[in-house]
Amino acid sequence: MENFILKNENAIYYETNFSCDNVIFLSLGKENFFITDARYTIEAKEYAKNCEVIESSDLIETTKDILKKNNIKKLFFDPNDFSYASYSNLRKDIATIFEEKPNFSKMKRLIKIESEIKLLKKAAILGREGFDNFANFIQENGKNKSEKELFFQAFKYMTKKAKYDVSFNPIVAINQNAAKPHALPTKKKLKKNDLILVDAGIKYKRYCSDRTCTSSVNFKNFNFTREQKFKNKRYQKIYDIVLNAQEKAINEARTGMKASNIDKIARDYIEKSGFGKYFVHSTGHGVGLDIHEYPNINNKNDLIIEDNMVFTIEPGIYLPNEFGVRIEDTVVMQNGKAVIL
Amino acid sequence: MENFILKNENAIYYETNFSCDNVIFLSLGKENFFITDARYTIEAKEYAKNCEVIESSDLIETTKDILKKNNIKKLFFDPNDFSYASYSNLRKDIATIFEEKPNFSKMKRLIKIESEIKLLKKAAILGREGFDNFANFIQENGKNKSEKELFFQAFKYMTKKAKYDVSFNPIVAINQNAAKPHALPTKKKLKKNDLILVDAGIKYKRYCSDRTCTSSVNFKNFNFTREQKFKNKRYQKIYDIVLNAQEKAINEARTGMKASNIDKIARDYIEKSGFGKYFVHSTGHGVGLDIHEYPNINNKNDLIIEDNMVFTIEPGIYLPNEFGVRIEDTVVMQNGKAVIL
Repeated sequence: MENFILKNENAIYYETNFSCDNVIFLSLGKENFFITDARYTIEAKEYAKNCEVIESSDLIETTKDILKKNNIKKLFFDPNDFSYASYSNLRKDIATIFEEKPNFSKMKRLIKIESEIKLLKKAAILGREGFDNFANFIQENGKNKSEKELFFQAFKYMTKKAKYDVSFNPIVAINQNAAKPHALPTKKKLKKNDLILVDAGIKYKRYCSDRTCTSSVNFKNFNFTREQKFKNKRYQKIYDIVLNAQEKAINEARTGMKASNIDKIARDYIEKSGFGKYFVHSTGHGVGLDIHEYPNINNKNDLIIEDNMVFTIEPGIYLPNEFGVRIEDTVVMQNGKAVIL
Repeated sequence: MENFILKNENAIYYETNFSCDNVIFLSLGKENFFITDARYTIEAKEYAKNCEVIESSDLIETTKDILKKNNIKKLFFDPNDFSYASYSNLRKDIATIFEEKPNFSKMKRLIKIESEIKLLKKAAILGREGFDNFANFIQENGKNKSEKELFFQAFKYMTKKAKYDVSFNPIVAINQNAAKPHALPTKKKLKKNDLILVDAGIKYKRYCSDRTCTSSVNFKNFNFTREQKFKNKRYQKIYDIVLNAQEKAINEARTGMKASNIDKIARDYIEKSGFGKYFVHSTGHGVGLDIHEYPNINNKNDLIIEDNMVFTIEPGIYLPNEFGVRIEDTVVMQNGKAVIL
């Protein structure tokens, strides 16, 4: 990789093991620069690796000074990483050529190294503990609680009272509301024999977990396991289709396949079951420092799957105004196969 | 205002009374277009005012089609509102001239209308209730609780268990940690006679509240009022300086003044008290749909203050590795004077 510039926090964390909310990172061959303001320089000097920390009250002007001083001819940048305003300021009165390279940091982070997989595994374990504790809350105290309050409790148990950050705001949706893939919590209250969909994750040392469970509601033995018995037969039918599609995709995923093939395994199964038009999103997405990164597991992505890629497998069926089911796990490719983290 | 394009959610909400996380808004003289994907069109058609809702799976291509069909020669855009990638796609193969107009939506929203002030007032009242309930928690159960847990409890009481959104993540900082204006919560535990700084706000119908209190910790009569008695004399001295600076700025703010004059009232008082170099940020910022909008109350802004502007007044003194004090209220200019919301 030649000279490049970054602004995205996770992309910079990946390069230096440190980040903050006001930083530009410049990589110029052997020299790297972490340009930030006075609020962050002390910590940056302590924690940021493989770079020189530069204090500045105008990051863009300082960046340009460094580019000029080092007589830099060309620099890669991600056009998604800069606003048009920042890009215009960067380009003004400088000879350096800025060459577009969309998503190059996400491409670098596509295959995880061992230490990253350890952190993702730990995040997944903590995430499962959150689900278990939240299940216990539902069993003991969930009756007649609104989606809004259940959302709050999911946040409480997933984060262990803010000990960890969430990787995204939990989704807690009952019956009809679960028919929306990104439902917001409402005043709707939880009753026996309802269907509840919970999509939640936490961050461990900045690495994300991501999991979705759909469960049958009771207040005696409530859980987020895969074995769910619904009183409503239509719930059970759709649940079983999604579960089979998800397990089939996990069991049959192999390194050397195209990402689109993994999507096809889940999608074909749901289509053959007659519900293809209700599986309205892709089968999965990469997970790492970002909750959504590469590889995308969709029907268009020809990327070849390799060992140590980490991504979700999360088929779903959404019947508008009725209900929805999604089952999601995060997997790592190891020895050619998908292993749930 | 002539033709313009918007992508920012709050800017679009201001125009149409509706928004969602994937939308482009086009205003072309008499015709306005709310361009969004299939997930949001039903709600958009129900709630978005003064615009035609257009369903699209590629917002940028649809936007360009509309611009071409209407033979639009020139369009204003905010260069902060678009990534360089989105802007490049918008510009490609189209004759329309895109003219930069930084922050034009924030300028439109500078002076609040009556209905907005009502919502901001309601947000402020709910925010104060959150502070009162959190104060009660601290009095009854705060002893030995970590900043992290207190952060969680602040979230719980401010949002009334997620009934409301926060306008930003609460800041809860004890003693030395309060010396950082944007402290993150740590494992540090709350003790009697500590100083605690809490900066928090909620949203009511999308409008934000914002308030900071600094209090002396006890577990018998804990509160977030202005009257605080610290056992530590240095805490008391700094607290009184910040309190006087803040009250002086509120009492002396007048319409017709420059924004920088209001900053100067607070800053001069703190400088005369000998702590000017420890007041490291501006005196305030506008509050509305965004938690930070116009007017900025800093030492450079020559904007003339007018009735119905809403902004914070929040001087602070931060003594590194010792402690910090900030006192913040959100005010509205009415009949020429600043009134706490």
